[in-house]
Amino acid sequence: MLLSALLTSVGINLGLCFLFFTLYSILRKQPSNVTVYGPRLVKDGKSQQSNEFNLERLLPTAGWVKRALEPTNDEILSNLGLDALVFIRVFVFSIRVFSFASVVGIFILLPVNYMGTEFEEFFDLPKKSMDNFSISNVNDGSNKLWIHFCAIYIFTAVVCSLLYYEHKYILTKRISHLYSSKPQPQEFTVLVSGVPLESGNSISETVENFFREFHSSSYLSHIVVHRTDKLKVLMNDAEKLYKKLTRAKSGSISRQNSRRVGFLGMFGNNVDHYQKKLEKLEDDMRLKQSLLAGEEVPAAFVSFRTRHGAAIATNIQQGIDPTQWLTEAAPEPKDVHWPFFTASFVRRWISNVVVLVAFVALLILYIVPVVLVQGLANLHQLETWFPFLKGILNMQIVSQVITGYLPSLIFQLFLLTVPPIMILLSSMQGFISHSQIEKSACIKLLIFTVWNSFFANVLSGSALYRVNVFLEPKTIPRVLAAAVPAQASFFVSYVVTSGWTGLSSEILRLVPLLWSFITKLFGKEDDKEFEVPSTPFCQEIPKILFFGLLGITYFFLSPLILPFLLVYYCLGYVIYRNQLLNVYAAKYETGGKFWPIVHSYTIFSLVLMHIIAVGLFGLKELPVASSLTIPLPILTILFSIYCQRRFLPNFKSYPTQCLVNKDKADEREQNMSEFYSELVVAYRDPALPASQNSRDISP
Amino acid sequence: MLLSALLTSVGINLGLCFLFFTLYSILRKQPSNVTVYGPRLVKDGKSQQSNEFNLERLLPTAGWVKRALEPTNDEILSNLGLDALVFIRVFVFSIRVFSFASVVGIFILLPVNYMGTEFEEFFDLPKKSMDNFSISNVNDGSNKLWIHFCAIYIFTAVVCSLLYYEHKYILTKRISHLYSSKPQPQEFTVLVSGVPLESGNSISETVENFFREFHSSSYLSHIVVHRTDKLKVLMNDAEKLYKKLTRAKSGSISRQNSRRVGFLGMFGNNVDHYQKKLEKLEDDMRLKQSLLAGEEVPAAFVSFRTRHGAAIATNIQQGIDPTQWLTEAAPEPKDVHWPFFTASFVRRWISNVVVLVAFVALLILYIVPVVLVQGLANLHQLETWFPFLKGILNMQIVSQVITGYLPSLIFQLFLLTVPPIMILLSSMQGFISHSQIEKSACIKLLIFTVWNSFFANVLSGSALYRVNVFLEPKTIPRVLAAAVPAQASFFVSYVVTSGWTGLSSEILRLVPLLWSFITKLFGKEDDKEFEVPSTPFCQEIPKILFFGLLGITYFFLSPLILPFLLVYYCLGYVIYRNQLLNVYAAKYETGGKFWPIVHSYTIFSLVLMHIIAVGLFGLKELPVASSLTIPLPILTILFSIYCQRRFLPNFKSYPTQCLVNKDKADEREQNMSEFYSELVVAYRDPALPASQNSRDISP
Repeated sequence: MLLSALLTSVGINLGLCFLFFTLYSILRKQPSNVTVYGPRLVKDGKSQQSNEFNLERLLPTAGWVKRALEPTNDEILSNLGLDALVFIRVFVFSIRVFSFASVVGIFILLPVNYMGTEFEEFFDLPKKSMDNFSISNVNDGSNKLWIHFCAIYIFTAVVCSLLYYEHKYILTKRISHLYSSKPQPQEFTVLVSGVPLESGNSISETVENFFREFHSSSYLSHIVVHRTDKLKVLMNDAEKLYKKLTRAKSGSISRQNSRRVGFLGMFGNNVDHYQKKLEKLEDDMRLKQSLLAGEEVPAAFVSFRTRHGAAIATNIQQGIDPTQWLTEAAPEPKDVHWPFFTASFVRRWISNVVVLVAFVALLILYIVPVVLVQGLANLHQLETWFPFLKGILNMQIVSQVITGYLPSLIFQLFLLTVPPIMILLSSMQGFISHSQIEKSACIKLLIFTVWNSFFANVLSGSALYRVNVFLEPKTIPRVLAAAVPAQASFFVSYVVTSGWTGLSSEILRLVPLLWSFITKLFGKEDDKEFEVPSTPFCQEIPKILFFGLLGITYFFLSPLILPFLLVYYCLGYVIYRNQLLNVYAAKYETGGKFWPIVHSYTIFSLVLMHIIAVGLFGLKELPVASSLTIPLPILTILFSIYCQRRFLPNFKSYPTQCLVNKDKADEREQNMSEFYSELVVAYRDPALPASQNSRDISP
Repeated sequence: MLLSALLTSVGINLGLCFLFFTLYSILRKQPSNVTVYGPRLVKDGKSQQSNEFNLERLLPTAGWVKRALEPTNDEILSNLGLDALVFIRVFVFSIRVFSFASVVGIFILLPVNYMGTEFEEFFDLPKKSMDNFSISNVNDGSNKLWIHFCAIYIFTAVVCSLLYYEHKYILTKRISHLYSSKPQPQEFTVLVSGVPLESGNSISETVENFFREFHSSSYLSHIVVHRTDKLKVLMNDAEKLYKKLTRAKSGSISRQNSRRVGFLGMFGNNVDHYQKKLEKLEDDMRLKQSLLAGEEVPAAFVSFRTRHGAAIATNIQQGIDPTQWLTEAAPEPKDVHWPFFTASFVRRWISNVVVLVAFVALLILYIVPVVLVQGLANLHQLETWFPFLKGILNMQIVSQVITGYLPSLIFQLFLLTVPPIMILLSSMQGFISHSQIEKSACIKLLIFTVWNSFFANVLSGSALYRVNVFLEPKTIPRVLAAAVPAQASFFVSYVVTSGWTGLSSEILRLVPLLWSFITKLFGKEDDKEFEVPSTPFCQEIPKILFFGLLGITYFFLSPLILPFLLVYYCLGYVIYRNQLLNVYAAKYETGGKFWPIVHSYTIFSLVLMHIIAVGLFGLKELPVASSLTIPLPILTILFSIYCQRRFLPNFKSYPTQCLVNKDKADEREQNMSEFYSELVVAYRDPALPASQNSRDISP
């Protein structure tokens, strides 16, 4: 790709970004859009927009940027939760890393690369190929490569130390978040599965006997889980019908008052029809509820008097048979994924294996479209496939748009289909909470992105050949070193199109905006009913981290990518702060458990860079540098293992010291008996009537 | 190797075995050898041999076999401990596996192999090469290979199910062993390391404050560890001197009475000299002891009132910083490896890495002698190296002895040097107990044996080439499939020489016998001073398991090895029962923790066999069979993961149910206050005076 093509792409996207930002700053001030751009504020009752018209409403302003940057980390922690803070810290970490990388890359590596072969004419930059700025421009065996070698070592050290301090910082915040928060039901509760069936005793009695015997001092109460999936379907139906009914009723009453509601004029006659249907459904539900009374599942939420008591039950194996009395920390009550409990130990285990196989199959299958997209970046291949396009493709502007813009756009659209599939796969694995499903889907998406966005793009040739590379580890460095630099221009344009445009469309929220417009048009709008969208950590984190991977691997290969990345992360920092403050609301709190994923992924990126460096120094006929790079991945992995030992245990569960301290503080400060009475009913299945649930509760 | 060479080897070894057994059955009846053949009995006061002379003493009898087979598993468990039972069960498991394998191998696979190519003359068996009985005799692409294919599947299923039931059996025994045993100090005690230094507080105070605060209900007492390695050296010196002194004294007194003691007539004059030396040493010790009063190490043994209390402290992370307040289950008091505690978290971690590197280096270095030994098995190579040997080597008997016997004997001798090195390496890793060191050394020895006895023998060629194979996983099956069958004859003779002769020399205890003879001759004998040797699990288990690996991998390649293995295991079963009952005494109990090693190793052997099968069916031009074998290792590994989830947690620690039940039973049945007073002093450092230790004990 020529520099001019890159500049075209940058130009288009800069234009788009400015357009989107301008639109945003105007649209957000319109009172009718408040549910699109500030649903969180509306929910919290903080929205202070007046309906008065003034000129300022039509002018683009940048006040939102200032407001987004205002809150301190501690304010974010207390208002938005730990996950939001971790999310923001990923940007802070990335900005730090790529600020350093940009300085080294642009002021040291780029000049070295550009002057790699000989003193060419310095002018006519636009006609230079992007290869002139990459390491491939440096002569084989040139001593200039030692500069790259040093840069890799220094960069790795900087990233590792930044990672260490970030890890430490987040851990401190995690502990202080525990200390400052009020007692939460999930801290006192344990989910027990695999309750053995005892003849003569119900599951509820078995659970009670067991915990009364083995945790006599701290046991508080329990709630046995019921099989309610069918009931839930009925309840959803009833809820929908009820909504329709109320709407139809209000429609028939206020038909005269409101023009808009009667727009399609089809309600009113249906009131009786709906009412009958609803009555029938309610009968059904009552029948099911009574039937379900007996359908207990061998799992229960067991609550304890102290956090330490719950931690003891979680951390020590309970029954002699490790497949029975399995304990795990309970999720937040609203985070429980109720359909989980159909799975026994063996069934959960098998479904895990099945999902793994399905995931691998998906990875392999999805290569096909990626290969097709790659064709667009290589125009001459496209011409051979579709000869009639030759005339159009020879026009310079068309070819520049196609090579610079279209491939990554198609690629991006195609990637949109993946997250729902991954969430579906993860939900089949038998996780007990939505947050665990999201975390697992996030990891799957990361692997998918690395495989399909990086490796499949980088390694050309048939799919079979690609698999072969990974069966011959010795050749991996050389193959990667030959293939990765060649794709530099594709990834630079990917950062600009997918990254920048992605961010600006994130802030504009085009789909919800159109949706809100359409619903208003058709009179279905109901301000009280709108839902605050939950923070899409699972979809966003892999995207953000993937750009980090690109930056780290291309750091010494093609430093031209770095300033674009830095711009991406700075924009992202502002935009996501704004979105977290105004738009999204976390449905559940994972307690910063996304951070270890970020850590592992950064280490993986570093090691990948080292492997490419080993191969590249080999290809560039500098075998000494190649050998001297080998200790670097080993040291990095050792560092990672050390970090995991040092920090990871605290991400999995809280230590005794914290728990006991917090328990004691609670006893002094809180009204615990009130909390206990809430705790006892916190894990009631929403599908069961209160009477049914309370049967399981032992005071 | 010709069949006749094998038969020679078998003959020699059978003869040796009978000779050794005869010698044993005579020698063991001599009263003077009672400390060699029955030290355990003597220690327990069960030795009932009279000094009267009768003719029976000179006749070989087989009564010891009957006595060795008498005790039931439960008797072994209660008298010899769980480790001894696990050791015996390894033999039982192997006998079952290889009984099945022998039947299938000899009656199905061997005839198929022998008639693989064509109907040759059936007679003149001795001149047949051993290859005629192996799978290499079957024609390429022959449908007879499907018989092997089925045999592999059935064999794997049988081994896995045997493994499962053995796992289950040992687990039951482990639990029942806990229930039936008396309270042990290690069950109530936790080792805490990484105690943070608080200004103004001694380590002892810090520990006490921490556990009083966070484990108020169950904390009993603690003992801070002291740095006493230098003191221990002095104490050892003093002990030796003291022994010499008493011996010298008794020598000068009883010189007239005893002829033997005065044999060299050099004692007596030295009494004064020794006494002076001893006094000086004791002064030194007292000085050191007073100096050491302040030299506390940031580690302590913390005892609790209940097993459950100790388990809570072990299983839950204590401090906020995961590198501080590290807890682990305490070893038995006599099992503590006192010099461990110089290592902090980071230092232990680094030394682990260093030991790993040293171990890998050792693996690679030790290939050299193996390659040399291999030369002996290939006579013509030896002839090219040493042409002057040609005349001797051409004699049939010499060549048969050399090819059939010498290589594995030299190999065996060479392997003798390895266990001490491995134990040394493991002891540098910062383990806190001798049993952990042994377990770690056992794993190292296993890996070493597999690498150096199997892979290095199997893969000929330069060392560099070998490493390359493992960098190209795709080619591994083919390389192994080509190389492994070729070494069948070497390993058959290895089983016969190393295995059989190893067993018979184990029972004869040649070295201790000679040693006891020499000490008697030189008048140093002292019946009261002899030590009961500790059971050499760490050295023996890798040997025994290695034969299992040979049997499993050669099961379908060269079934001729199977009957020899079966004989080995049957002999071993009798001999080791005898040795465990009469000779060895376990110094410490690991609670059956060797079994998971056996499990993993058996799974590894199976997977190795599968990999070879995949390669072999490929080489034999039966690609369908090759592909159909691929699911087998995957299924086996899944089975293994399932077993680990199902059983392993119970090997690591006991579940709450057991602990609380046992705690309650103890409260009813035992005099716990008496036990507590023993517990408080159980972990006193033997190098420190009682007063010094008791300072740390808080009542």
